[in-house]
Amino acid sequence: MAKIGVFDSGLGGLTVVKEIKKRFPKSQIIYLGDTARVPYGTRSAKVVQKFAVEDAKFLESRGVSQMIIACNTASALAYQQVKQAVKVLVYEVITPARTYAEKIGKNIGVIGTRGTISSGAYGHIGIACPLLVPFIEEGELNSPALRLVLESYLKQFRDIDTLILGCTHYPLIADLIQEIMGSKVKLVNPAEEIVKTLDLPDGNGKDEYYVTDLTRSFLSQGISPQLVEL
Amino acid sequence: MAKIGVFDSGLGGLTVVKEIKKRFPKSQIIYLGDTARVPYGTRSAKVVQKFAVEDAKFLESRGVSQMIIACNTASALAYQQVKQAVKVLVYEVITPARTYAEKIGKNIGVIGTRGTISSGAYGHIGIACPLLVPFIEEGELNSPALRLVLESYLKQFRDIDTLILGCTHYPLIADLIQEIMGSKVKLVNPAEEIVKTLDLPDGNGKDEYYVTDLTRSFLSQGISPQLVEL
Repeated sequence: MAKIGVFDSGLGGLTVVKEIKKRFPKSQIIYLGDTARVPYGTRSAKVVQKFAVEDAKFLESRGVSQMIIACNTASALAYQQVKQAVKVLVYEVITPARTYAEKIGKNIGVIGTRGTISSGAYGHIGIACPLLVPFIEEGELNSPALRLVLESYLKQFRDIDTLILGCTHYPLIADLIQEIMGSKVKLVNPAEEIVKTLDLPDGNGKDEYYVTDLTRSFLSQGISPQLVEL
Repeated sequence: MAKIGVFDSGLGGLTVVKEIKKRFPKSQIIYLGDTARVPYGTRSAKVVQKFAVEDAKFLESRGVSQMIIACNTASALAYQQVKQAVKVLVYEVITPARTYAEKIGKNIGVIGTRGTISSGAYGHIGIACPLLVPFIEEGELNSPALRLVLESYLKQFRDIDTLILGCTHYPLIADLIQEIMGSKVKLVNPAEEIVKTLDLPDGNGKDEYYVTDLTRSFLSQGISPQLVEL
């Protein structure tokens, strides 16, 4: 019983897997990306809860002993529903990031999907950034258009010293965000913070990657996932 | 039996409803937007086919006598599957637009989702424009970032005289596309072309709008849709 479940709406949760592997290289990951229904960030709470519970039950059926909701939107909107739906330990990514940000920062800002921001789960000034995930999913990590979009979101913050990257996709454009915000603003990556709170056992087998659709963007990650229907 | 079904991945199909109402103001529309699983354009053919068949079966269960696949991606990838899955007449939006473009143009270009373009259904030089739908869904119809994104897509065309707007969302930014392409390039809107081929009866009741999720972008259209689960 040493399998660790990780689920996300798509490929963003791979940033959480990366952090897990840094700290616990021998852990055995069972990953599910719900690529047939990505993104979650623009959907209603009710639909996100339904999808997240289905994701969690799938991971439970694969024999995981604990699971991480890598998706910030699902963590913000569906943690209670997922916890009630499965028998194993469930972690969300919001609380560790929020706790850490409050330790190191005074004026804290958050960027995330519309679902995450409107949930208020992070409890600080939040700006919804709905166009970032489409750019990142397209592999556009530093285009002039992305820069314009980012600037229009980030210029809405006033005098923050700490910025929580409240979506699993955003660490992939952290350099650009840092450049726009300036070097004095500290960025908080929830993937790093959740992993610091864990103590994961070594696994006995290979990592397994599952997706609900074989999409171009997931396949470009160099992983050969198995297709499942939820 | 005078109800006309129209389905789309989201709200884009409302551009088809608009054209139907111009020509057949007394028609009775039963609309389904699969807002819980939008967009279709980035998903595999297999998943688009599954979703489109579910959409069509729902409309059939509402008693429509014929239905239009408003979504270009579903028209391109799932027309045969939908036709086999339901007993009523099914229309797709690709063929009338292609036929018309070939009548008025010599060098024809197409823009569409990745799914539509890679299907080759339109049979002409195509550029996939995966970032346009997210901008349009966000209501950003003329922002500097959208203009940059559009220019980077459209500058790939060489000497076309006709451009097919191969996605139900694109008519909403037709002015911007026309401006970038220049006034000599003729734009073809598949919604207009499919409607020209139809002869729709008057209806006996009110239009009905169904969605699989009550999302912000659909609700901002001024329609009060009913929520359904597929």
